[in-house]
Amino acid sequence: MRPRVVVVGAGFGGLTLVRALRRAPVDVTLLDQYNYHLFTPLLYQVATALLDPSEIAHPIRAVLRRQRNVRVVMGRLLDVHLDDRRVDTTAGSLDYDHLVVAVGSVNNFFANRSVEEQSYPLKTLDDALALRNHVLETFERASVTSDDAQRKRLETIAVVGAGPTGVECSGAFAELSALVLRRDFRGSPLTEVDITLLEAAPAVLGTFAPSLQRAARRTLQRKRVVVRLQTAVREMTPEGVVVLEDGSRIDAATVVWTAGVKASPIAGMLGVAPVDGGRVPVDAWMRVGGRPDVFAIGDVAAVQGDGGPHPMLAPVAIQQGEHVARQIVAAATGGAAPGPFRYFDKGTMATIGRNSGIAQIGPLRVSGFAGWLMWLFVHLVQIISFRSRLVVLVNWAWNYVFFDRPVRLITGMEKRTRPADD
Amino acid sequence: MRPRVVVVGAGFGGLTLVRALRRAPVDVTLLDQYNYHLFTPLLYQVATALLDPSEIAHPIRAVLRRQRNVRVVMGRLLDVHLDDRRVDTTAGSLDYDHLVVAVGSVNNFFANRSVEEQSYPLKTLDDALALRNHVLETFERASVTSDDAQRKRLETIAVVGAGPTGVECSGAFAELSALVLRRDFRGSPLTEVDITLLEAAPAVLGTFAPSLQRAARRTLQRKRVVVRLQTAVREMTPEGVVVLEDGSRIDAATVVWTAGVKASPIAGMLGVAPVDGGRVPVDAWMRVGGRPDVFAIGDVAAVQGDGGPHPMLAPVAIQQGEHVARQIVAAATGGAAPGPFRYFDKGTMATIGRNSGIAQIGPLRVSGFAGWLMWLFVHLVQIISFRSRLVVLVNWAWNYVFFDRPVRLITGMEKRTRPADD
Repeated sequence: MRPRVVVVGAGFGGLTLVRALRRAPVDVTLLDQYNYHLFTPLLYQVATALLDPSEIAHPIRAVLRRQRNVRVVMGRLLDVHLDDRRVDTTAGSLDYDHLVVAVGSVNNFFANRSVEEQSYPLKTLDDALALRNHVLETFERASVTSDDAQRKRLETIAVVGAGPTGVECSGAFAELSALVLRRDFRGSPLTEVDITLLEAAPAVLGTFAPSLQRAARRTLQRKRVVVRLQTAVREMTPEGVVVLEDGSRIDAATVVWTAGVKASPIAGMLGVAPVDGGRVPVDAWMRVGGRPDVFAIGDVAAVQGDGGPHPMLAPVAIQQGEHVARQIVAAATGGAAPGPFRYFDKGTMATIGRNSGIAQIGPLRVSGFAGWLMWLFVHLVQIISFRSRLVVLVNWAWNYVFFDRPVRLITGMEKRTRPADD
Repeated sequence: MRPRVVVVGAGFGGLTLVRALRRAPVDVTLLDQYNYHLFTPLLYQVATALLDPSEIAHPIRAVLRRQRNVRVVMGRLLDVHLDDRRVDTTAGSLDYDHLVVAVGSVNNFFANRSVEEQSYPLKTLDDALALRNHVLETFERASVTSDDAQRKRLETIAVVGAGPTGVECSGAFAELSALVLRRDFRGSPLTEVDITLLEAAPAVLGTFAPSLQRAARRTLQRKRVVVRLQTAVREMTPEGVVVLEDGSRIDAATVVWTAGVKASPIAGMLGVAPVDGGRVPVDAWMRVGGRPDVFAIGDVAAVQGDGGPHPMLAPVAIQQGEHVARQIVAAATGGAAPGPFRYFDKGTMATIGRNSGIAQIGPLRVSGFAGWLMWLFVHLVQIISFRSRLVVLVNWAWNYVFFDRPVRLITGMEKRTRPADD
């Protein structure tokens, strides 16, 4: 019987691993709680009404349709029996010879209940749709209210966290507001949307070079995004007021939370003590607890020593997925096992909207239009399915030429509750 | 001051009316509970994972952006004060000189509570998304269950009502099943999806000519849809069993309800007694209760005498919208008022999936591939926005060439509850 590989999670790491095993003499089972792989770098474009969900979410079965040695199962991991080499899932139990845990990360509200309950995070597809619906609805309500204070509140967006997601999201909301809504709501009392970007650290895009940080700040200012550094959020009131650490307040109907993620809480199931606030400690071969048959990769894993732990980024997950695939192929074919994992940093980039991006590739620093073109090219190439590439390109081109946002729909307003089917 | 026209509902009738008033010396307010116009004839393609919501739903503000004399308000009608010429809405009160009620129709479950609670209707965008998510999830669950009876139930779809929506929906599910899922679930125990089309009347597509009804039935049979005529649904059990009038049962995890719509319940607000099970009686100028300033058009209105009442179809609503616009223009400019409304039947068509459609245009009867081409052309031309036309065409072409369904996403699985914003 061929070795059975169970992969939990169809994010960048898990999916890369599975595809890298396509010619290996193994039987792969890929488990995910969703039926799609999510291209998370463009999630903010769904939240800001530029892209449709299906343009960044690809059905896993469709992506892997031509791969004969994989079985896709939709379900959630319930338990891991390390000694029996078996996992329990909501879709039944699975025996494994190699287990790869690639369950990624979840929003981190740093145990702040009021923020968790009242802000809009941006980590899942449902998060993005909820944020899109909410923002568009606040604009609608702002256009008909006769209460000035209320309108001001409805027109205020606070984005917490000035990492790439927060910066991209602020820029995209500024464009949605300036270019589209001012025309959509022509003649209404709705004026300008106030966007404030709050960051606890002393700089935006902390992982980028200072020259690129300055370029990003200039672009944000040109887009009239107010950037407040060294400004932490203390709490949120049920009325949607953000209370800052210095006691000052922002009346914002929309608060977007992009200030942190943490590893999915899985370490306990794998019998190890979490590190780095939740991550699973692994060695330089991504092995968990010294076991040769259990791996963790991507956001959920923290390599101990050997240059780790690595940042929670898609390229890390992809490279770790490829590395573990090589190990599994070596074990199955008796080939030479690879050396310890080394992360190769191909560079990072971010966009701050129309015509403006930044990229940092080795010693290279690119900003402005050239940075934007690089961002565009790299992201388009990365999107897995050809169809989506075409549709995304049509949408981006449409938006670029006509200053439009095609997907301004408020959906999901009436939920019918249905009995469970079982 | 220019006459104020308040239009309630941005469906085919209301939107046509508003656009027809674009050069008229009037101030128009268009009220709708959603922020989009829905191209309902293609709703079933969203439910069967072929099109994205944004391809059939167009933001009303975007559609009317160039029209200077219209204000769009998102809200619900609460009350009509006929003598004060004022309407109350969830977005405030509006005074009018002319009121046009174009609120359309809603699902009709014929007071059958069990069906209302447990079937999936197909009338709103949220209906279509709920149905898509549900069907895709039943396939996922069917692929992992070890209980044969349970799998059989999960693989069974019953479509109730063999009008155009029911026929198109059955055909589309048959294609989703035969072409796509058989490949997606290769190697799983999931076998074939059973689709049964239930119709209480003795024929499918009752409004079409007998030769076209036969053509449609043949196509459905070729697609392995079981058609059961003169078969009414008595009730549904909480376990998802459809009990028919003759006492027999169908174990179906998915029951789609397309067996009826009824006028939105608004007659009472307009001070008239409903006719035809809920419609607002109007004269041949679509005036309500003999008032010269209150009109009802489309599904919600039933013309008394003069060839009425007309069927609840988009072309009727469109022509009535144009007619009332001419009346309002005449009143505002002192021009000649039009004669009584006459419905011009341009023909009807339906598609039963890939390469097969039927069209009935005056004495002309077209079926098969030619009927499908006509259907394709007419629907593509009718979709309002150019961008959507392009994207829809890309999706249809993709589907046609690759036998694919691009939008197989199960979304909305985790709903966060949010506090109300006010």
